[in-house]
Amino acid sequence: MKDNVHMTSNEFRESGKQLIDWLADYYQRVEEFPVLAQVKPGEIRASLPTDPPQSGVAFDAIVEQLNSKIMPGVTHWQSPNFFAYFPANTSEPSVLGDLISSGLGVQGMLWATSPACTELETHVLDWLAKMLALPAEFLSNSAGGGVIQDSASSASLCAILAARERATNFKSNENGCREELVAYSSTQAHSSIEKDIKVAGIGRANLRLVGVDEQFAMRPELLELAIEEDKQAGRVPFFVCATIGTTSSLAFDPLPAIGEICKKHGIWLHVDAAMAGTAALCPEFRYIQNGLEFADSYCFDAHKWMFTNFDCTCFYVADRETLTHSLSVTPEYLRNQASETGVVFDYRDWHVPLGRRFRALKLWFVIQHYGVAGLQVLVRHHVELAQKFRGWVLEDNRFEIIGPAQLNLVCFRLLGDGALNEELLRRLNASGGLYISHTKLNAKYTLRFCVAQSRTELRHVESAWAAICAEAAKLLRESGRGSHSNQAVSGRE
Amino acid sequence: MKDNVHMTSNEFRESGKQLIDWLADYYQRVEEFPVLAQVKPGEIRASLPTDPPQSGVAFDAIVEQLNSKIMPGVTHWQSPNFFAYFPANTSEPSVLGDLISSGLGVQGMLWATSPACTELETHVLDWLAKMLALPAEFLSNSAGGGVIQDSASSASLCAILAARERATNFKSNENGCREELVAYSSTQAHSSIEKDIKVAGIGRANLRLVGVDEQFAMRPELLELAIEEDKQAGRVPFFVCATIGTTSSLAFDPLPAIGEICKKHGIWLHVDAAMAGTAALCPEFRYIQNGLEFADSYCFDAHKWMFTNFDCTCFYVADRETLTHSLSVTPEYLRNQASETGVVFDYRDWHVPLGRRFRALKLWFVIQHYGVAGLQVLVRHHVELAQKFRGWVLEDNRFEIIGPAQLNLVCFRLLGDGALNEELLRRLNASGGLYISHTKLNAKYTLRFCVAQSRTELRHVESAWAAICAEAAKLLRESGRGSHSNQAVSGRE
Repeated sequence: MKDNVHMTSNEFRESGKQLIDWLADYYQRVEEFPVLAQVKPGEIRASLPTDPPQSGVAFDAIVEQLNSKIMPGVTHWQSPNFFAYFPANTSEPSVLGDLISSGLGVQGMLWATSPACTELETHVLDWLAKMLALPAEFLSNSAGGGVIQDSASSASLCAILAARERATNFKSNENGCREELVAYSSTQAHSSIEKDIKVAGIGRANLRLVGVDEQFAMRPELLELAIEEDKQAGRVPFFVCATIGTTSSLAFDPLPAIGEICKKHGIWLHVDAAMAGTAALCPEFRYIQNGLEFADSYCFDAHKWMFTNFDCTCFYVADRETLTHSLSVTPEYLRNQASETGVVFDYRDWHVPLGRRFRALKLWFVIQHYGVAGLQVLVRHHVELAQKFRGWVLEDNRFEIIGPAQLNLVCFRLLGDGALNEELLRRLNASGGLYISHTKLNAKYTLRFCVAQSRTELRHVESAWAAICAEAAKLLRESGRGSHSNQAVSGRE
Repeated sequence: MKDNVHMTSNEFRESGKQLIDWLADYYQRVEEFPVLAQVKPGEIRASLPTDPPQSGVAFDAIVEQLNSKIMPGVTHWQSPNFFAYFPANTSEPSVLGDLISSGLGVQGMLWATSPACTELETHVLDWLAKMLALPAEFLSNSAGGGVIQDSASSASLCAILAARERATNFKSNENGCREELVAYSSTQAHSSIEKDIKVAGIGRANLRLVGVDEQFAMRPELLELAIEEDKQAGRVPFFVCATIGTTSSLAFDPLPAIGEICKKHGIWLHVDAAMAGTAALCPEFRYIQNGLEFADSYCFDAHKWMFTNFDCTCFYVADRETLTHSLSVTPEYLRNQASETGVVFDYRDWHVPLGRRFRALKLWFVIQHYGVAGLQVLVRHHVELAQKFRGWVLEDNRFEIIGPAQLNLVCFRLLGDGALNEELLRRLNASGGLYISHTKLNAKYTLRFCVAQSRTELRHVESAWAAICAEAAKLLRESGRGSHSNQAVSGRE
């Protein structure tokens, strides 16, 4: 029996090609699906057999179930009408690079367990550092270097762990986190910083959320005040996270001022550029990372706006030894000649997991397929579309813009109360024609319109705006506040 | 220009099918490659262009580079002659399920962001719990449930975080890890436990490595002694990791006795069955998890011995609320109706990363393609092969077996000193014909022979044994200790 439990080579060729066509068809039809899955909790599970199959199922039957049972519950992140959260882009070259990664199934935990997995990763991260004009300290030929992690949450955790070790004179790994360490970010930093601070045993009470200016950027003078207050109370400021493009409103913390403060007080500066970092591919947008030379660590997600499917967070440190010291444990069964020479990177010491897949392949396929110039074209196009959208909102006095509305994210709201905007969001998403998400800015319920999906074109942004206007007009009519577009409305919240 | 930077649908169909054939050819030829890559540090990087391409590269040229520059640096984890570390199996159905995952590119951080991603995961993990006969507390219709994580390292970190919160009356997240918490594992537990204990701010000094018996299993009476000593000193025992199949020698800690101790002292019991857990697919091997009903959490890696490519750690908890309480942070931009009803799982609260790919697809493809019976056939086959190998070693008095040599892992050594065995390992791996790894047991350098690669057959194990015998004979001859096989040798180390 064992001879026929595996798929034969011919079956694999046939089924694989069938799925390539399946994906190609999917991309061609993706606009036909409601962007946000229109299912109720439990609906997908209820359609699946309660028990696993005792005997193997024919491949066609698996694909049939994929179509009939799974796809109705999929939210289409690859739809050009996806404007919610952040993009989770994939692209054909990325899918194909990842296919090779799944197929080779190598473990890159040590250099020795698959040298190409480690070396291509280091190489492509050096390429990226050059493409983005990152400070030279992040290149692997300096004392630093880059590594691919699963998410910005995990990358910032590693930054915190390295910072924690450094601040405790390399004693927190051994003795636990006994000192009163204090971390800082703005009120607008990503929620993962709070999560990571808890994970690392620092405690949420020791994370200071520093106030922001009217454009939601951290106020450095408040940061410095907080640091001094903590120092005077005998606490140890050890970590600052500055954000280049906050999740809520794409606000940019002033790196030069924050960097000076960190330098003066000897505090680890981590810079989180999760989505916006990709913009630095274009020289005209590199202003967003002015001051990055102060950073001890930096990360951005190629799996957001750089056409590389999840997971592909690019994490850089200026001092790799502090990082690897903080994360390395070497039992006998992982010892090997190459590692002991000290001339190779063992990426297991650059993050929490031991095992790791060959993620550099997809990034390598993407960079080669598009070339630097091709990636720049896409980023510029997205920014142009978002800024067009911003212009339309500005011209329509039923709406207001909140926050900087820079690059590819526009935060806006219908003038009126939060419930009105919540209902607008609900109706737009329920229509299936587009998907946007929300946040709160200055305590106001605000809609977020993010343009960054690989295939989004002007016509998609135009349709989205038309749908928003139509639904807003209807809502305003229902609430008795007018029926004509562009009319002046009173009653700003 | 933007219109032609993306791959066209036809190009994708063509390139995708080309790569499916590439992989099928690779699987057919995988035995021809040296299992362990035969490159020197830096060799792969030196072959790659220093700078990224400014313009896009043709797909054929990318594939050509994959063949000529990357493949020489790949260690072939899918070779049937791979007997090192642990398997990192993939299989055709897994590759195809993962292809759909890469292609759809959905983010499963919240139920709402792609309901099928969450529901299929819960469903397939319930299937698996039934397939392995796990305690009912781990099923999602109880207070527990399962989730896919990237690695056992990350899963045990989450177990530690949940245990830490519970032991501190849910105060460690808020205040940091201030109490003197103490964790326990055997001296043979995986190095990730030490890493996780450091990450969580507990401190390595607060991890007790409990002694083992002659079969490398934890001695429960020593565990209890250590716990009592810590309690008397005012410390708080909070976490025990028991291992079902240690990395070094596949030793099995006695769960029933350890479980009783944890219960008595109110300590979180985590059970790590990283590779061996898969064996429980077969009723005759389920004895390895006797006592699992005492566990608060459990994990095993489908990406090791269950033909599902990395990453696919299956992590179960008996009390999901303690876990999600420990890991949940909800900013406004992640709030949504479905989550607030409390009837859905948001898997971002079950691990450190926020983002997550649709990993359940590959597992679903694998379980359906093989069926329970097909998976059992493969597991039994591997165990049978390893036990044959064990028999050959036992019959050859040049060698000794160390440790239990149960299931699919045989630890053995050439009688003589460590250097002899180190040299034997070096030569075998340098031959390219097979790949094995090593450990130290009772301070002796010991070779590990793990049979679990998807396509390993009797002939591969026979060839491996022949190569080991031939190389051993040569080594013994060189060291002047004999030239005939099966001869008695004196001088046990």
